[in-house]
Amino acid sequence: MRKLKYAVIGTGALGGFYGGMLAHAENEVHFLFHNDYDYVLKNGLKVDSVLGDFLVKEVNAYNDTTKMPVCDVVLVCLKTTNNGILKKILPPILHKDTCVILIQNGLGIEAELAAAIPDLSIAGGLAFICSSKLGSGHIQHLDYGRLTLGSYQGDNQAILEQVCADFAAAGVPCDFSDNLKVSRWKKLVWNVPYNGMCVVMNTTTENLMAHPATRELIHDIMLEVIGGANASGAPVGEAYVQNMLDMTLKMKPYAPSMKLDYDFKRPLEIQAIYSAPLAEASRNGYEMPKIKMLEQQLKFIMDGYLK
Amino acid sequence: MRKLKYAVIGTGALGGFYGGMLAHAENEVHFLFHNDYDYVLKNGLKVDSVLGDFLVKEVNAYNDTTKMPVCDVVLVCLKTTNNGILKKILPPILHKDTCVILIQNGLGIEAELAAAIPDLSIAGGLAFICSSKLGSGHIQHLDYGRLTLGSYQGDNQAILEQVCADFAAAGVPCDFSDNLKVSRWKKLVWNVPYNGMCVVMNTTTENLMAHPATRELIHDIMLEVIGGANASGAPVGEAYVQNMLDMTLKMKPYAPSMKLDYDFKRPLEIQAIYSAPLAEASRNGYEMPKIKMLEQQLKFIMDGYLK
Repeated sequence: MRKLKYAVIGTGALGGFYGGMLAHAENEVHFLFHNDYDYVLKNGLKVDSVLGDFLVKEVNAYNDTTKMPVCDVVLVCLKTTNNGILKKILPPILHKDTCVILIQNGLGIEAELAAAIPDLSIAGGLAFICSSKLGSGHIQHLDYGRLTLGSYQGDNQAILEQVCADFAAAGVPCDFSDNLKVSRWKKLVWNVPYNGMCVVMNTTTENLMAHPATRELIHDIMLEVIGGANASGAPVGEAYVQNMLDMTLKMKPYAPSMKLDYDFKRPLEIQAIYSAPLAEASRNGYEMPKIKMLEQQLKFIMDGYLK
Repeated sequence: MRKLKYAVIGTGALGGFYGGMLAHAENEVHFLFHNDYDYVLKNGLKVDSVLGDFLVKEVNAYNDTTKMPVCDVVLVCLKTTNNGILKKILPPILHKDTCVILIQNGLGIEAELAAAIPDLSIAGGLAFICSSKLGSGHIQHLDYGRLTLGSYQGDNQAILEQVCADFAAAGVPCDFSDNLKVSRWKKLVWNVPYNGMCVVMNTTTENLMAHPATRELIHDIMLEVIGGANASGAPVGEAYVQNMLDMTLKMKPYAPSMKLDYDFKRPLEIQAIYSAPLAEASRNGYEMPKIKMLEQQLKFIMDGYLK
């Protein structure tokens, strides 16, 4: 089987880890950097991981996709708030069968990309991971790491299997979802309460779980997500709430990505994680009042520091 | 008609203003102070009011109700979080017809006092006012000021009429409520959204109204309060929401009392303003999901700085 050529768009907490793991396992990986380009060319990409620390010394680093080769697989690891640039930056690295995998949170992102670039082979990726970017070219991987892939459109089953095998060989547990929509909603069961509440309460998942009032609220919000999922034709059982609560209690203290975005005064992924699910549930006749409130609070907070 | 002898329990933003206005108009008013006792004995009680500034030079000041005379009317202007002390501190100043008026926000406070001191003549007072305590013996009155009185239990209609006349003569608009329960719920239409949201968002009423997301949320929360009121047998029309929004837009920028309590790391009136209405609505089969969420967020915040 021919080796796949990978591109990583957005080399941060996710792209740095997943791309780094593939590169460390001697796959051909081409990384797009923004601010870290010069640093990484000189110093490489450092990954401090619970699976073992490593340094990718010779990084195929770029600051512009027009300088990159066409690739078989594109791992989009941007914040969804930057997805508007994909229409412009992806075409130079696409061949007719390139599979673009959106390793991002939230709903509606594949549909948006499909509308922007017609006939594209698109998949979604769900990252169950605690990782963050510590500094230029420096990723910290604290816990978990499993990647779930699911096709959105295009004939990409074979290539996704090969991607999954490459990840597994590189030490990243990877599995398939035969229903990307269900997988995205299930991921929201965690992301919706913890991302937003860590920002609004300016705290960690650990502190939210330590207080009975916020623990109850997290639970209630998870039930709303599950109600929205079921109303939207993505069946998720209520038992999944307990799974997520138990998993979080076992997690190392961790600030979700939205909390880091807040701390560093970056845009928050409100559209993909809140507005899109609210709209989809509402279209299906299901309202999620607490999630709506969280969305409203987050908009107020974000606009307060972005303006 | 015999002049009434007044006691003010808790001489802060409310007690200092309302008691100060009565004293300034030459009523006999006895004030209970806590930290400000020595200061006020020496310097008097200063009220900076939009109605005109004044100083009560000779204040009947006390730091203990056992040193106070029995009074005809007791204005309780404590934070509801301190109501637990009423059972102990009120008896020394009560005669058999003394009317105790709870000038406080929230639900359930009259019932709690009635259970603590049997056969007491009790009324409620709703203060529609923007005032705050600037420092020792120094009250600032920014806007509004109307007081609404309503009987809770006891034969106190005549005395309440006299109180109302005394306030009117002192320059404080005062009216009667023939349904204290409705009046308390109506007051919550303002207090529930603005008090809590100013704390959780760490902002002012003005900023909340300036952002479309929080303006919408304030509106939604007001509708929940009205739903709770109606379910609990306290009819309030939905048009009242627009009244409250319009009033707030016209208000001078103002930090509600709960925001000041938060800023000064004091206990928040969560029980009276959130938990009691939630419990009453729930007993009547009506849930208020956004208000429940606000209560949970406030508990987390308060316990974070009180512990």
